[in-house]
Amino acid sequence: MSSSTGIERLIDLMAKLPGLGPRSARRAVLHLIRKRAVLLGPLAEAMAEVAATARECLNCGNVGTSDICDICKDPSRANAELCVVEDVADLWAMERAQVFKGRYHVLGGTLSALDAVGPEELRIPRLIDRVGEEEISEVILALNATIDGQTTAHYIADQLDSRVRLTSLAQGVPIGGELDYLDDGTITAALRARKEI
Amino acid sequence: MSSSTGIERLIDLMAKLPGLGPRSARRAVLHLIRKRAVLLGPLAEAMAEVAATARECLNCGNVGTSDICDICKDPSRANAELCVVEDVADLWAMERAQVFKGRYHVLGGTLSALDAVGPEELRIPRLIDRVGEEEISEVILALNATIDGQTTAHYIADQLDSRVRLTSLAQGVPIGGELDYLDDGTITAALRARKEI
Repeated sequence: MSSSTGIERLIDLMAKLPGLGPRSARRAVLHLIRKRAVLLGPLAEAMAEVAATARECLNCGNVGTSDICDICKDPSRANAELCVVEDVADLWAMERAQVFKGRYHVLGGTLSALDAVGPEELRIPRLIDRVGEEEISEVILALNATIDGQTTAHYIADQLDSRVRLTSLAQGVPIGGELDYLDDGTITAALRARKEI
Repeated sequence: MSSSTGIERLIDLMAKLPGLGPRSARRAVLHLIRKRAVLLGPLAEAMAEVAATARECLNCGNVGTSDICDICKDPSRANAELCVVEDVADLWAMERAQVFKGRYHVLGGTLSALDAVGPEELRIPRLIDRVGEEEISEVILALNATIDGQTTAHYIADQLDSRVRLTSLAQGVPIGGELDYLDDGTITAALRARKEI
């Protein structure tokens, strides 16, 4: 298919997206070609725009279109509470819940001996600096409940020791969760942290 | 997130792709932003190119970058055999098998009373014309083994009655298939079409 190499190339690139393989990339590209006016054209433009404008916030590591992100710039957000997350997807998840009104710090991953990720590879030094520079009274460690996530939380807690109030998200039964489908660790955590009704 | 509306818009568009929902679209967009030099930029270009050049072959309905597709133009392919498929994905699947050296006709769907798809909505009239105009001696109906696919095959067989040799793909046990995982219909078809060893 010599003259349709553009299509082949698009399929190859689409197959590199997380969640898409060669088969679903082909399906997606055929869908795009069928809807080229309403979907493929706009998508190409949106991608070109994001490719040109997207950058990481120099302060917190969030993704945005300027050097300092909207959340860091927003004067209505509380300076005193800093929520530490692993990556931008976690920040977006927190924002969707619309419950946290402080600021964020995106580490960009977790410490990992296996993958040779040390504090310098993450935004941990910048976090220590921020706690010193900004008027932060509480650091909320909203890291994933994985081994690497918890290792990272312990490391940060050690580094920030007694300079600030340190908290972490509560562990327990998720809303709508059924006990039968929960793992033993979650049930253990929920039982230990049981509350008076 | 006012100034990052470009990113929001990209997520909304990506979520319209088959196989991607809001969550996987967000993941894909974050992946794209992280790899903007090697993936997002090239993808935007490839999409813009395909949006500008992709078109359907006027003859067979295949997707390509010119009015007559590469397969229809290829002089080395046999004119006598015409393989009828439902859509371009099926044509691509046949081509990947590298076994068919004739030409194709893409219907663009199947007849469906439920969705009010009649012969005029598909490329069936064009198929009848091609059988009259071109030197076709065999029409292979490679339609899906679904009710709509088989209804469409019967309709085409009626229309082309005795003007040409009509065949369909064999039904049976897929290569590598395990009997235990096959449906009753496939096993019945395979048994009825059993061959001498």
